[in-house]
Formats: sequence, structure tokens, C-alpha cells
Amino acid sequence: MTCPLCTPENEEILLQTDSLRVIAVHNEANAPAFCRVVWNAHVAEMTDLTAPQRTELMDAVYRVEAAMRQVFRPEKINLASLGNVVPHLHWHVIARFENDANFPAPIWAAAQREAGMVLPDNWPEQVRALLV
Amino acid sequence: MTCPLCTPENEEILLQTDSLRVIAVHNEANAPAFCRVVWNAHVAEMTDLTAPQRTELMDAVYRVEAAMRQVFRPEKINLASLGNVVPHLHWHVIARFENDANFPAPIWAAAQREAGMVLPDNWPEQVRALLV
Repeated sequence: MTCPLCTPENEEILLQTDSLRVIAVHNEANAPAFCRVVWNAHVAEMTDLTAPQRTELMDAVYRVEAAMRQVFRPEKINLASLGNVVPHLHWHVIARFENDANFPAPIWAAAQREAGMVLPDNWPEQVRALLV
Repeated sequence: MTCPLCTPENEEILLQTDSLRVIAVHNEANAPAFCRVVWNAHVAEMTDLTAPQRTELMDAVYRVEAAMRQVFRPEKINLASLGNVVPHLHWHVIARFENDANFPAPIWAAAQREAGMVLPDNWPEQVRALLV
């Protein structure tokens, strides 16, 4: 199978380095305030990286978390590296709100309600501006 | 509300330091190969920690991941810091198997099948032995 993170299409990139990229995620109906940090090389697990690589990746995750906290003022940040479907290392960074579709359950659980919060249309630009 | 991670009961501790603890998790029916790394102090987000504290916490997560890979030889490791219900910083470290109850969906999605894998009864002891 071709890895969709090795041959990406239509990514809205907020930050790009030689090692990784940060993208705004728009196709998760239950989590509209969602960024993904993708390690560019095709490895599966954090423990497949060297220690400096892990630090580099997590520092990017923390920068995204800090930017999303500033832009969204969410109830909670959710971080997850799953990769069961696409075993190419990537981190989900998700801002959660008390009136989002699933709170307090994980976004992968069944939706409990219609999401009630309104996000600024230009949130990717706001997050991007905090990452440069 | 009293924080259940500040006043823990009946934790099976695999590693304990001044800053954090690693516990074996047995109450998640869909994820029997599950450890949790709990930051002892009551803070909510990774970006509430100092940089050295983040490094210390993630180094423990990576040690648990490495130990669980060695003990379980899983299809994938899942890492997640959610905390929507209990906003006290903790990491879920979950070994996933192609024949577990949810694979490849997250463990928080609806189960798709009865879990088919058999884990060694003494897996917490095996993980503990790799953490010391």
C-alpha cells in the first residue's frame, strides 16, 4: 500500500521543516480544531527515532499545543500518536471544548451532540502565525 | 471534585519516581495491554510543564513503549494524553494487536470483535523488569 503520509495530497501546511510538517486537519467532523504533526520519514513508533529526533518532534507538538491554546482557549488539549491505519509517525493535536460533539469522551467515540462552539474561520492562519 | 490521580487507590505501580509513576491498567476491557504514565503533580497540559519536566515525562513514556514492544511484540503502540475527564497530566501507552477488540480503530471507538490475542498473565512483571 502506498503510504498516504509519504505521498500527501491537499495538505494545508502551517509549518514545514526538513524533518516534519504541521498541517491543519479539516476532515474530522467531530474535531474541527485539529492539527497534525507529521514526521516526514516513514517510521512507525517514537522509539524508532533517535533521542534528538524525538525531542525535535515533540518540541513541534508542544509549539502547536501552545499556539492552539492561545488561539482557541480550549477546555483541554488532546495529544495522540496512534497510527494503526497509517503506521507513519504523526501526532494528533486536538483542541477540545465542553460543547464539542464528544466532550469529555475522546473524539473517536460516538458523538454525543451537535458541536456548539464557533471557531474563527481563519484559525489555521492564526495558528500558523504563532508557529513561525 | 477530588482528583482521582492525586488520591490514587489500588494502583499497580510498575515504576515510581519523585516526579511520576507508571501503572498497569486493568480496567479497560478493550485494551488489556495498557500502561499509564502519571505526572505526580496536578497540572493539566504538557505546556504547563517546564521543558526539563516534559523531557522527563516523555522519557518515561518512551521507556514504557520500549518495554511494551519487547514484551508484547504488538502491531502498533498507541500513545495518548487526553485528560478530558481527569485533567491531571497522564499518558496512555497501549499495545495494539490486529486481533484486538478495535483494531485498527482507536480503543475508544466501538468494539468490532471479541479480542483474540492471549497475553502473558505476568505481563506487568515483565514490563516492570524492563523499567528498573
